[in-house]
Amino acid sequence: MTSPLWEVYLEDNRPRFIEALFEFLRIPSISALPEHAEDVQRAGQWVADRLQGAGAENVQIMPTGGHPVVYGEWLHAPGKPTVLIYGHFDTQPVDPLELWKHPPFDPVLKGGRIYARGASDDKGNLFSAIVAVEALLKTEESLPVNVKFFFEGQEEIGSPQLAKLLAENRDHFSCDMVISADGLQWAPDQPSLELGLKGLCALQIDVKGPSGDLHSGMCGGVIQNPIHALARIIDSMRSSEGHILVEGFYDDVVELTEEDRHFMAQVPYNESEYMATMGVNALFGEPGYTTRERNWARPTLEVNGIWGGFQGEGDKTVIPAEAHAKITCRLVSDQQPATVAAAVATHVKKVTPPGVQVVIQQSDHGAYPYLMPMEHPGNVAAFSVLKKLYGKDPYYTRSGGSIPVCHYFLKELGAYTVGLAFSLDDEHLHAPNEFLRLESLNRGQKGFVMLLKELARKGC
Amino acid sequence: MTSPLWEVYLEDNRPRFIEALFEFLRIPSISALPEHAEDVQRAGQWVADRLQGAGAENVQIMPTGGHPVVYGEWLHAPGKPTVLIYGHFDTQPVDPLELWKHPPFDPVLKGGRIYARGASDDKGNLFSAIVAVEALLKTEESLPVNVKFFFEGQEEIGSPQLAKLLAENRDHFSCDMVISADGLQWAPDQPSLELGLKGLCALQIDVKGPSGDLHSGMCGGVIQNPIHALARIIDSMRSSEGHILVEGFYDDVVELTEEDRHFMAQVPYNESEYMATMGVNALFGEPGYTTRERNWARPTLEVNGIWGGFQGEGDKTVIPAEAHAKITCRLVSDQQPATVAAAVATHVKKVTPPGVQVVIQQSDHGAYPYLMPMEHPGNVAAFSVLKKLYGKDPYYTRSGGSIPVCHYFLKELGAYTVGLAFSLDDEHLHAPNEFLRLESLNRGQKGFVMLLKELARKGC
Repeated sequence: MTSPLWEVYLEDNRPRFIEALFEFLRIPSISALPEHAEDVQRAGQWVADRLQGAGAENVQIMPTGGHPVVYGEWLHAPGKPTVLIYGHFDTQPVDPLELWKHPPFDPVLKGGRIYARGASDDKGNLFSAIVAVEALLKTEESLPVNVKFFFEGQEEIGSPQLAKLLAENRDHFSCDMVISADGLQWAPDQPSLELGLKGLCALQIDVKGPSGDLHSGMCGGVIQNPIHALARIIDSMRSSEGHILVEGFYDDVVELTEEDRHFMAQVPYNESEYMATMGVNALFGEPGYTTRERNWARPTLEVNGIWGGFQGEGDKTVIPAEAHAKITCRLVSDQQPATVAAAVATHVKKVTPPGVQVVIQQSDHGAYPYLMPMEHPGNVAAFSVLKKLYGKDPYYTRSGGSIPVCHYFLKELGAYTVGLAFSLDDEHLHAPNEFLRLESLNRGQKGFVMLLKELARKGC
Repeated sequence: MTSPLWEVYLEDNRPRFIEALFEFLRIPSISALPEHAEDVQRAGQWVADRLQGAGAENVQIMPTGGHPVVYGEWLHAPGKPTVLIYGHFDTQPVDPLELWKHPPFDPVLKGGRIYARGASDDKGNLFSAIVAVEALLKTEESLPVNVKFFFEGQEEIGSPQLAKLLAENRDHFSCDMVISADGLQWAPDQPSLELGLKGLCALQIDVKGPSGDLHSGMCGGVIQNPIHALARIIDSMRSSEGHILVEGFYDDVVELTEEDRHFMAQVPYNESEYMATMGVNALFGEPGYTTRERNWARPTLEVNGIWGGFQGEGDKTVIPAEAHAKITCRLVSDQQPATVAAAVATHVKKVTPPGVQVVIQQSDHGAYPYLMPMEHPGNVAAFSVLKKLYGKDPYYTRSGGSIPVCHYFLKELGAYTVGLAFSLDDEHLHAPNEFLRLESLNRGQKGFVMLLKELARKGC
């Protein structure tokens, strides 16, 4: 059996593609850090140039008021569905930098893996989608369906400007479904289809005590210490087993049905392997749920960062004037980010001890939870493609991660999002030494071509 | 009444002295930070040069294995007591630097106050003692008593090498009593004699969770978060009212007698003024004790610094691999630093939740508590000098601060330490915008001359 021309094209151009991806990975497009705003813009320009080169039309860098969205289209398949391909070209920050074995923005190919910040989340997947379209246009001079590209630069900060952009440009972005090039597969040899994503809300707690740092001898035991106050506030939020103690936190949570639980239990899970991967000697979590259920279907509250007082080498015997913590909650249907953030803020105010004052900053970083029907035609098509790629039925999964824009695609465009991304959860997403398997890159390129063809055949 | 010659000398040379002190204050002799080790050495050299210039003999910079001690002597008063004058030329760190109105090591004289790190604690007082001796030697060509100088560069890190230095050089340092140029007066117009000091022990708690930072969506609610574990550990150490809950913490504490309490209550105290100075809207502390009693005679446990996870601008949704806290306890007689540190370590291990591991670093920063008899002849002499300087009887006080070396002067040299220092507790010791009142500098110089003369008359 001869390989189709598009597949030959992908094979022949592999070295060039890897070189191009490395160029992309060298741009430190950290969306959370204002000093990298220009790099995010530069990454957007790089994506726009690639789209142009691949044969997309009407390519534009759309201003959002924050980090941009890059758009492109190919709409010459009358009577066929219109598919919007989503991905993001921004990355997480890189600290702690000293834990990286290679500099995060100096990509390196080693043992079949590309190491770089953003390799797995999400530059590699995004790039695969562009290359797939390029292969089709270069070899067949057309695409089997109409395609719009929607690549954003603000996913890692919760896509704060995209709700507005989508609401104001409904016609421009209109489509039958979305394919997300951001997400995971189950294992190197096991595909999966992600049906659900968690939402998110973020807060910063600033505890302010005395007007300046005080001598811990002169004022110890007499002036409330903002670090102790903050520890009390944090500890009051969760039971020792991880049940969230914030009043109203679980009010809008759709409880798991017996069927949901049965379905989740189908996906194999090895607890001791999981603990070894994470490097912990015990798991933890809300009573009454399995680890998988907690991971996929239960809301969480985690402190992501804490600081106050002296952090240098040696000692400095102060009662600090301030202490701070950053908190994010991951939400499940039907929790609302603003409602949960308000409940947390109310809790914090209620438990703040006398002698300190608390200021709560609610971040723009919010996302609605998202859940899609298993029987959606896009899922059916993706199921068939994944089965061909891996020779196995994909699992149906959910994720603890958030892709905020999925909620807005549904709300503003009426379009569900099908995941077709090939990252794996051992690839240190959001952590030092992020990497992407080279084979996932190849699978992604092939998978995108196959899915577009499948959607043309079956419709959506 | 004509002023004595030494007083005229002090008056005439005031501008030169201030210029010299500024030179001293420009040396960033932060003992806690290894990168400033050379500056501490440089400050020691500066002190040695000043001692030489003042007429001290046998001036030497004594190695200790850490920051040095500067020694000098004048021993030509046979039959008179030998007095060892103590002070320190190292300073606290300066962060948070952004809260300083002037750079901390660029001293400025403004409104009768010298602003600089170390101005009040303790370079100004140390300098006054040298200048007093200089004035006597230049105008009278002798001192009324034998004097040894013992100026150290490691007070702010707990004088870790001084116990050994004193034990190995008992004859070299032998004396009848010590005068400490490190300490406080009660108020600009009210002298005091400090009879007691707190001890200190220091620990760092390192909580280690997963082997790397994890994605808070993928692993939230499932992996124990080191920050939550640390918050739990910290919160378990103190009741909401500030009683320390560490088992055995109070075992060796000598409880206050009714007489002690009566005596402490003699010293006036204005609660609302105190709160306004500290910038808090409520005080705090162990039930059953007044604020003064807590300050002077009760042990404390304070977190001086905390850090873990993401502290930058924006959000980074991680479960961090580690979280850390620095803790110091202030001790009272007869608590032992090592015993209390061990009790805290045991408590931490007991309350550490599963899923994380804890490492406890016990710092070298330890100090024994210290208490001296009110009727000591050095106190009687200092009482009389302070009364002349201020026109008022001094209060008898204690301090929440620690001067570790006092314990070793008593243990190794058999000498009690009388305080004669002129800092005030509103001078931002250990905090941004530290300052010293110019008038305290003048009083200090005069006070040292008067005390040496008084000790020559009455003996000690």
